[in-house]
Amino acid sequence: MGLSERTARVVLSRVGEPGQVSLTGMVARDGAVAVVRRLREAGVGSLGEDLAARMAQVDPEVELVRADQRGIRFVIPGDDEWPPGLDDLRHASVLHERGGPPVGLWVTGSANLREVTEDSVAVVGSRSCTPYGESIASSLGADLGRHGHPTVSGAAIGIDVAAHRGSLAVQAPTVAVLASGVDRAYPASHRQVLGFIAEHGAVVSETPPGGAPMRVRFLARNRLIAALSQGTVVVEAALRSGALNTAHWAAGLGRPLMGVPGPVWSEPSAGVHEMIRRRNASVVSNADEVRELIAPVGQAVLRFNRAPTNPLDVLDTEARQLLDAVPVSQAADPTSIARTAGLSVTKVRAVLPELHDLGLVRCEDGRWRLAPQTPGSQTHSA
Amino acid sequence: MGLSERTARVVLSRVGEPGQVSLTGMVARDGAVAVVRRLREAGVGSLGEDLAARMAQVDPEVELVRADQRGIRFVIPGDDEWPPGLDDLRHASVLHERGGPPVGLWVTGSANLREVTEDSVAVVGSRSCTPYGESIASSLGADLGRHGHPTVSGAAIGIDVAAHRGSLAVQAPTVAVLASGVDRAYPASHRQVLGFIAEHGAVVSETPPGGAPMRVRFLARNRLIAALSQGTVVVEAALRSGALNTAHWAAGLGRPLMGVPGPVWSEPSAGVHEMIRRRNASVVSNADEVRELIAPVGQAVLRFNRAPTNPLDVLDTEARQLLDAVPVSQAADPTSIARTAGLSVTKVRAVLPELHDLGLVRCEDGRWRLAPQTPGSQTHSA
Repeated sequence: MGLSERTARVVLSRVGEPGQVSLTGMVARDGAVAVVRRLREAGVGSLGEDLAARMAQVDPEVELVRADQRGIRFVIPGDDEWPPGLDDLRHASVLHERGGPPVGLWVTGSANLREVTEDSVAVVGSRSCTPYGESIASSLGADLGRHGHPTVSGAAIGIDVAAHRGSLAVQAPTVAVLASGVDRAYPASHRQVLGFIAEHGAVVSETPPGGAPMRVRFLARNRLIAALSQGTVVVEAALRSGALNTAHWAAGLGRPLMGVPGPVWSEPSAGVHEMIRRRNASVVSNADEVRELIAPVGQAVLRFNRAPTNPLDVLDTEARQLLDAVPVSQAADPTSIARTAGLSVTKVRAVLPELHDLGLVRCEDGRWRLAPQTPGSQTHSA
Repeated sequence: MGLSERTARVVLSRVGEPGQVSLTGMVARDGAVAVVRRLREAGVGSLGEDLAARMAQVDPEVELVRADQRGIRFVIPGDDEWPPGLDDLRHASVLHERGGPPVGLWVTGSANLREVTEDSVAVVGSRSCTPYGESIASSLGADLGRHGHPTVSGAAIGIDVAAHRGSLAVQAPTVAVLASGVDRAYPASHRQVLGFIAEHGAVVSETPPGGAPMRVRFLARNRLIAALSQGTVVVEAALRSGALNTAHWAAGLGRPLMGVPGPVWSEPSAGVHEMIRRRNASVVSNADEVRELIAPVGQAVLRFNRAPTNPLDVLDTEARQLLDAVPVSQAADPTSIARTAGLSVTKVRAVLPELHDLGLVRCEDGRWRLAPQTPGSQTHSA
């Protein structure tokens, strides 16, 4: 049986496990045709006792036809749709015995996978999340979507699906990366939302169609979420959450790792805070801050958070300095105010009436104090 | 009139303004006696037109006696009670025209100022805070106090006074640094709590007794809060909060700067998050994390946040790997599980019964799946 690179990868996708490092490394280096040949020759090998037998049972042509009939395509390196970011997994370290670029991705959905992941952001978090986290995940999905950033997530209950739904709410594309086959909704209650995701974006898996969601496949899957996005935001994650596994991959791939802070006594925020503390993840509060961090160098959105404009901003430095020296309660004379401000009395006598015209100070028998309505510069709170 | 260093500093404390850099720099370099002499000779000088006249009006001996009668002492460099950390202000940069070590500190209270600030932590924040912030400030005050760390703050409404009260609640000392004279409660409603603070700790000001709280004095005061503590924690601070001014001083002094995260849509947390983002302040969620950051090198409290012990922790790596490969819903045979786990079928057949005895897996007609109550390692949430 003569195999093409594509059909050889179908065979390996069927007989291997997602992210199985003994396979992915070899395939990335030598190509699938060579690996399949070698495995056939070796017979019983490191990949399992019955490997040759299992390989013989796979008919890749039939697999591809069947998948195609169900709207599923198999994307491999060299395809126009192959996201180049996946190749970065060659050099990322291995975690839980899983790593390397996938031998291929089973994809369903309207979007071109390379295009839809070009400016994408992974938004992930715990299944056991709070309304706070869900609300943030969904806002992030929507706000990122409005600015042309598709979200990538795992379609799990909680933060994941909230992020997908946020994108969908603004008709923005979103990408779900599954541990099961793309034709298997897990949880089953997400069948409908997965349909919407495919309609507006893509549903992706390293596990072939029909494959069940097993624990180890979730671990392998997490590396794809990180590799298919330009940065990863963890919204809520308890200390042991799998979202932190995705975070680990993002950091290992050198992609920006971000965390949304929350109340310190919220368990689903504890893992995020720990990640900020220990992994130097960036603190992000909204989509703008995410966009700033994933912007390519030179296109950075240089933007600082500023309080709303304060009426005092119109004052020049000396007037401000003078105003700072005017007592809040007990009125003082210009000489005393000049001393406090470190300004000349002449200057103070000239500027006080201006401040008075602005309604900022009040004069009582030649002595001055702040008008009660003068907006606080708040510089005098500790 | 022959002046001692102490009486010369009283004169300068009366005629100058807190943190007035033209004074503090000279005094730190040349001592107060020399500065007073020079100012008298110069007559009209950079410090104000009527300086000589004002200096002539001050009788420092009388000032000290009067202060003493009211339980107020004047602490200067060289005194046993002088906190050496204040001298670090010599090298810190100037902010809002304020900086340098104070020429002296007016102190009331039972504590020795040097001792009480040796292991102290500044806990500061906005006056316009939330119950969330108040509660955290007060817990920090109490928990730090229980571990021998007095709090330092500004006795303002909101976060400041909550921190002081937290310390007082566990009979721990706390230090209030005021912008007004130590005999003037600001706000007036804090008279009683300032009494408690003096009883159990110290109330401190660079402003002489009777002095009013002026804006510029709050700015000067903030540098003392930073300099009188081993690190500064900002609990809540809007983007323009004066607490960020204290944070700036802490960073300038090279002391640990910490921020407590909060809900991203809470305005009083926005300044804290911005400080974490832009100033690389550390995220802290509780007193233990603060203690870890202020611990001197070599005494660090090496402690990682961990989730509560998981029953799965008792499993060895292979058993764990096996368990990860057992399907959650549809049962699988040992051969398929072995393949997924990357383990030999022999090994899998041996370990599955052990996992069964632990109640982690269930067997159905020779096929295995996870028991419903198997605790999640949560590694399969995104």
